[in-house]
Amino acid sequence: MKINGTYYRSLWLDDDGWSLRILDQTLLPWRVEVLRLSSAEQVAHAITSMQVRGAPLIGAVAAYGVAIAMRSAPQDLDRIVAWLGETRPTAINLRWALARLHARLAPLPVAEREAAAYAEAAAIADDDAETCRLIGQHGLPLLQEIAARKGRVNVLTHCNAGWLATVDYGTALSPIYQAFDAGIDVHVWVDETRPRNQGAALTAFELGAHGVPHTVIADNAGGHYMQHGEVDICIVGTDRVTRRGDVANKIGTYLKALAAADNEVPFWVALPHSTLDMQVDDGVKEIPIEERSAAEVTHLTGPDDAGKLTRIQVTAPGSRAANPAFDVTPARLVTGLITERGRCEASPAGLAALYPDKAA
Amino acid sequence: MKINGTYYRSLWLDDDGWSLRILDQTLLPWRVEVLRLSSAEQVAHAITSMQVRGAPLIGAVAAYGVAIAMRSAPQDLDRIVAWLGETRPTAINLRWALARLHARLAPLPVAEREAAAYAEAAAIADDDAETCRLIGQHGLPLLQEIAARKGRVNVLTHCNAGWLATVDYGTALSPIYQAFDAGIDVHVWVDETRPRNQGAALTAFELGAHGVPHTVIADNAGGHYMQHGEVDICIVGTDRVTRRGDVANKIGTYLKALAAADNEVPFWVALPHSTLDMQVDDGVKEIPIEERSAAEVTHLTGPDDAGKLTRIQVTAPGSRAANPAFDVTPARLVTGLITERGRCEASPAGLAALYPDKAA
Repeated sequence: MKINGTYYRSLWLDDDGWSLRILDQTLLPWRVEVLRLSSAEQVAHAITSMQVRGAPLIGAVAAYGVAIAMRSAPQDLDRIVAWLGETRPTAINLRWALARLHARLAPLPVAEREAAAYAEAAAIADDDAETCRLIGQHGLPLLQEIAARKGRVNVLTHCNAGWLATVDYGTALSPIYQAFDAGIDVHVWVDETRPRNQGAALTAFELGAHGVPHTVIADNAGGHYMQHGEVDICIVGTDRVTRRGDVANKIGTYLKALAAADNEVPFWVALPHSTLDMQVDDGVKEIPIEERSAAEVTHLTGPDDAGKLTRIQVTAPGSRAANPAFDVTPARLVTGLITERGRCEASPAGLAALYPDKAA
Repeated sequence: MKINGTYYRSLWLDDDGWSLRILDQTLLPWRVEVLRLSSAEQVAHAITSMQVRGAPLIGAVAAYGVAIAMRSAPQDLDRIVAWLGETRPTAINLRWALARLHARLAPLPVAEREAAAYAEAAAIADDDAETCRLIGQHGLPLLQEIAARKGRVNVLTHCNAGWLATVDYGTALSPIYQAFDAGIDVHVWVDETRPRNQGAALTAFELGAHGVPHTVIADNAGGHYMQHGEVDICIVGTDRVTRRGDVANKIGTYLKALAAADNEVPFWVALPHSTLDMQVDDGVKEIPIEERSAAEVTHLTGPDDAGKLTRIQVTAPGSRAANPAFDVTPARLVTGLITERGRCEASPAGLAALYPDKAA
């Protein structure tokens, strides 16, 4: 996708042919700054500090982290894969990508691992871009149907599941971009997505850069708009979908799914195959939820009136804060899943039909 | 209640005997600053700018606004009551207090209106403090019952319905203060309550000043904690309750009520009689929802790392924002109401039994 007319992916190989370039997403939308990651340590830091975030993108970046490590320590494959796997606990794509690298590299002589790792990481990145394009194709009819019936389509999304969260196109935003490009009158309600404001910062930035009409709202507001018929469909991304269709996603997703169910608004979840975790059944009970720093709740950074990036406190001094980063939406609240293979019910049967090769 | 050991009400008469003193709540918790309001215009500005906020407090402040106006323009009673009534559209207490003043003053000769207005405003303020104390008494058994069963009591609240939102004690927080004072092991999950952060700023400040254990969380987090058994009861305040028990309250309340229902967590609403609007039945359809400035969503103010109050932008430049200030929780999601007369079901029958004098 484009920023100010320049085409970007969310990661690419540097001209040196081996180090990784990313956009520092902690500085977006205030500054478009490209970082160069030249060690596995830098890659791990980029993931934990959320310079890169979004389940699919994390997977691809971690794959390049392995590749970079293979340049100097191909014998340490097991250790590096295990270590990178601990950078974020909730998203399953991270472990999926690392397992794919490990399976490809472990049988190889150490001297061959570097080249194979770069090839595999590139394949993961290219696959993700194509997968996201296909997700958009399969989500598009949902928006076309509403447009045919009502004219304008109001979509609500939570967090950022756009091209910045993937290698290109996005998951939840891919159908929206394709609908917009097809001339559909689409408008997006963008949940700001506290505490890190990925919606207010990244989704709004992405949609604005592409010209898609959108309105940022407090996370509190979506239920009200659904009660008043101002949301036609919710589409969100996900960090992990279980065998029975439970959906782990950014904290607060569950609340929007409840409101959608209460107001008969379709609630769709967009994901690539790499987000499926057929080893887990009950998402609420089984998926580990990352607890992040309280400082993400107590402080916020943005430009002051003079444009200087400034950190301010937003909670009463002395009050403690807690910061669970994800929640789990039970499958019963999910209208359906949009994947690169098509759409399906959020159920064991729905997933097994679309992914017989993944069935446990 | 106390701040740093000094007893405060949220409003009081100045030593001059006629102007009104308030705490500037837009500066809390960063600065405890007392404002003097000496004209009806200043009172109106204090309400619209939310230097005072909270349905019961707005009513009392508006009453003093009428009293101040009666000093110089007692013949303008009708105009002043109508004008102050337009400062905030959603809370019904405002109109209740103004109607009470009008009913008391309109029959009087203009020369007698000033003294009568001050007496009536003082009565409204004193009544509110006593009403809130009684709300606490009637809510306390709910917390005692949980404490007897479980030991610790985890309460979730949204926005600020503490003493800062009333004249003293608060509504939703009054049972919590009384439980804490009675030695119950109570802990409060404080929704930060975007966009204005009345939870993170005011509720956390109040609870902290009184020593009540509490944790600030993003508004997105409450559903997750309810799924995991970490919330025993929700108690919120309200700006208007309809004849059938629908509850208008700060935007996002509805989402918490949905999560509470989905997880069988009791959801209670605390209110004084002045918050009842027996003229309205269907809250979602009939209660006007105030749309406030988009700047409340796009910008936030707090102290920077050097302590200087600084405004920062939090949404992508160029993105528009919307800011509905309230939503309506249907009575079916409300476990019950806590009033100064006792507890009742959120239903026409429940309200009619407790308030036969208000029945339409």
